Amino acid sequence: MAGGVACGVRKSGVRDLGLLYSELPCETAAVFTRNAFEGAPLGVTREAVEAGGVRAVVANSGNANAATGAQGIRDAYAMQGLAAEALGIEAEQVAVASTGVIGERLPMGNVSAGVRAAASELGGGGFEEAILTTDTRVKEAVAWVEVGGRTVTVGGTAKGSGMIHPNMGTMLAFLTTDAAVERECIQKTLSRVTDLTFNRVSVDGDTSPSDMALLMANGAAGNEPLTLDSEDYPLFAKAVESVARELAREIARDGEGATRLVEVVVEGAAGEEDAAALAKSVVGSNLVKAAVFGEDANWGRVLVAMGYSGVAFDPEGVDLWFGPVKVFSRGEPAEHEEAEANTTLGGDEVRITASLSEGEASATVWGCDLSYEYVRINGSYRT
Amino acid sequence: MAGGVACGVRKSGVRDLGLLYSELPCETAAVFTRNAFEGAPLGVTREAVEAGGVRAVVANSGNANAATGAQGIRDAYAMQGLAAEALGIEAEQVAVASTGVIGERLPMGNVSAGVRAAASELGGGGFEEAILTTDTRVKEAVAWVEVGGRTVTVGGTAKGSGMIHPNMGTMLAFLTTDAAVERECIQKTLSRVTDLTFNRVSVDGDTSPSDMALLMANGAAGNEPLTLDSEDYPLFAKAVESVARELAREIARDGEGATRLVEVVVEGAAGEEDAAALAKSVVGSNLVKAAVFGEDANWGRVLVAMGYSGVAFDPEGVDLWFGPVKVFSRGEPAEHEEAEANTTLGGDEVRITASLSEGEASATVWGCDLSYEYVRINGSYRT
Repeated sequence: MAGGVACGVRKSGVRDLGLLYSELPCETAAVFTRNAFEGAPLGVTREAVEAGGVRAVVANSGNANAATGAQGIRDAYAMQGLAAEALGIEAEQVAVASTGVIGERLPMGNVSAGVRAAASELGGGGFEEAILTTDTRVKEAVAWVEVGGRTVTVGGTAKGSGMIHPNMGTMLAFLTTDAAVERECIQKTLSRVTDLTFNRVSVDGDTSPSDMALLMANGAAGNEPLTLDSEDYPLFAKAVESVARELAREIARDGEGATRLVEVVVEGAAGEEDAAALAKSVVGSNLVKAAVFGEDANWGRVLVAMGYSGVAFDPEGVDLWFGPVKVFSRGEPAEHEEAEANTTLGGDEVRITASLSEGEASATVWGCDLSYEYVRINGSYRT
Repeated sequence: MAGGVACGVRKSGVRDLGLLYSELPCETAAVFTRNAFEGAPLGVTREAVEAGGVRAVVANSGNANAATGAQGIRDAYAMQGLAAEALGIEAEQVAVASTGVIGERLPMGNVSAGVRAAASELGGGGFEEAILTTDTRVKEAVAWVEVGGRTVTVGGTAKGSGMIHPNMGTMLAFLTTDAAVERECIQKTLSRVTDLTFNRVSVDGDTSPSDMALLMANGAAGNEPLTLDSEDYPLFAKAVESVARELAREIARDGEGATRLVEVVVEGAAGEEDAAALAKSVVGSNLVKAAVFGEDANWGRVLVAMGYSGVAFDPEGVDLWFGPVKVFSRGEPAEHEEAEANTTLGGDEVRITASLSEGEASATVWGCDLSYEYVRINGSYRT
């Protein structure tokens, strides 16, 4: 059950506090930001997940409760305690997440009223809205899969949309499933899926101190608890991955100021890490992003971004496509109509594919273009 | 002697081809981009510098002659030969540099006419202009220093202003001196100075495949040739560093779309590399850059950028200032007036200082803000 209310953390009066709650006990896995500065809620949530039995999430937007010192940690524990009291469960069963402005104290009066209101309206929806900041829309995904003769549901919601970059735990993402999953299995699943999906999104190269993804499994489907060795485990893992990928793509598409989703595929790399590093370098390049915004198929900038990725490869072995249009072939410009290449940048989704001659590994990453609106949003975020 | 002319590589009719020439033989040092994709002129110039005796530079803007395959290499050699013929010297005495659009063939007819015209107008100036692309002004610096009883001049010119990021050879920079300097000494000087100056500039996180810096010394001052052990060598090295630093600051100030220069100082780091990595992470953050543009002293974004720099440090030991206003102290927000902190972002130059508790090392880096104009320039560069 979930719910979200407006309690005044955000000044605009939109929903800004949400609760997510499972009546059944859960196995819960988590991944966290790799930023050296970590928001206060992350330590509190890590402690709870490690203790086992997390079955609820209290989350707010508008304030990240990060860089708030010892007071921030006290506030995060207080927020956890308020949610536990309102739901009638133990404090250690509640994960805490905050996203928004950094360096300001949480308005605890608003949070307290918000938690009570959200608890009384559980089931009324609005959690997906309550976690948004500069996002322009909610992000939800769902998948069904047959596991041990039972139909299992995997659902998820996430928020973007700035301070988003690969090599992180992730932004905020909350995945739930009614499958029964053993503890080691659920954590490994979430870690691997995060590497393949959320960690392959870049909006602006900034890794937030509030990033966190949770996967909660309450077993309501009645299947035998899944382990890594279960026959149907690969199906379940694929379902989690597909939900996370859809959320990851939605985060990229709704990047701050974005007008289009950019998907970069690198094939023929020596290893998956190389492929991902090359693709992330391209999708993170301001010059590539601005060219996509301007519908200019400036393929030289893609090569340049691959060149400074830190990955060693033979430039003479590179082929490059914008959509279906081949623009570069084995170290030489490929004959093509510039106008035709530019046309591939006109839609809602752009795909850039690079093929190397190093090996068999590939990776896909997602990002967005760089627009005037990104600058406007981030030049005036706090004011 | 130097000169620059308009020969039609750039469509706008501005100066786009320049020659720099020393009538005396020179010792010349060079550093080059670390991008895996390298423009065709770099290989030609590297070969010439290694052979010794480079005493001229031919440079064009408007076309980088990069990602142009085997034809591009033939064109770079042809450009070198044309300049040598016009100046009456050997081809291997000419360094070649090109900057501008990537992936298009150099218009050799224009280049040929331009080289002849520039050679006939040597001494008429205009070289500094001819190497500019999206730069809004020429960049020049000069220093004088007493070496072995002789007054020595160190001069330089450079171009920015996009695809500029630390960890490179550098953008285009040409430094000249009438000092006599031995070969090993001049290369070590340029490499060290580049690390301290050009490699500490970031406009947009993109490392160009055309980056190159040259230091040419023709000995006209009549001093005993300088070695690393010369008594006055430190003075000379400081003079080269001060010229390079001034050019580096001018490149940052004139970054694409920039409205202000941003200087980031990190002190108290465990080592100089750590200090530089932390400072570069801050100066390269789109979110910090957009906040500076919007005159919003959003110090949380500075902490976040330090946090994902990859450098290990204790967040509780961090102090942070915007100009003279302390905003963060030992892991806690510092009492300050937000309006006062914002005021420090209003001028032409912004200084952000972070102090750690790890050691004694420090580093200063330069960048600029992120404006609507950056997006406009790079969304329509080729069209």
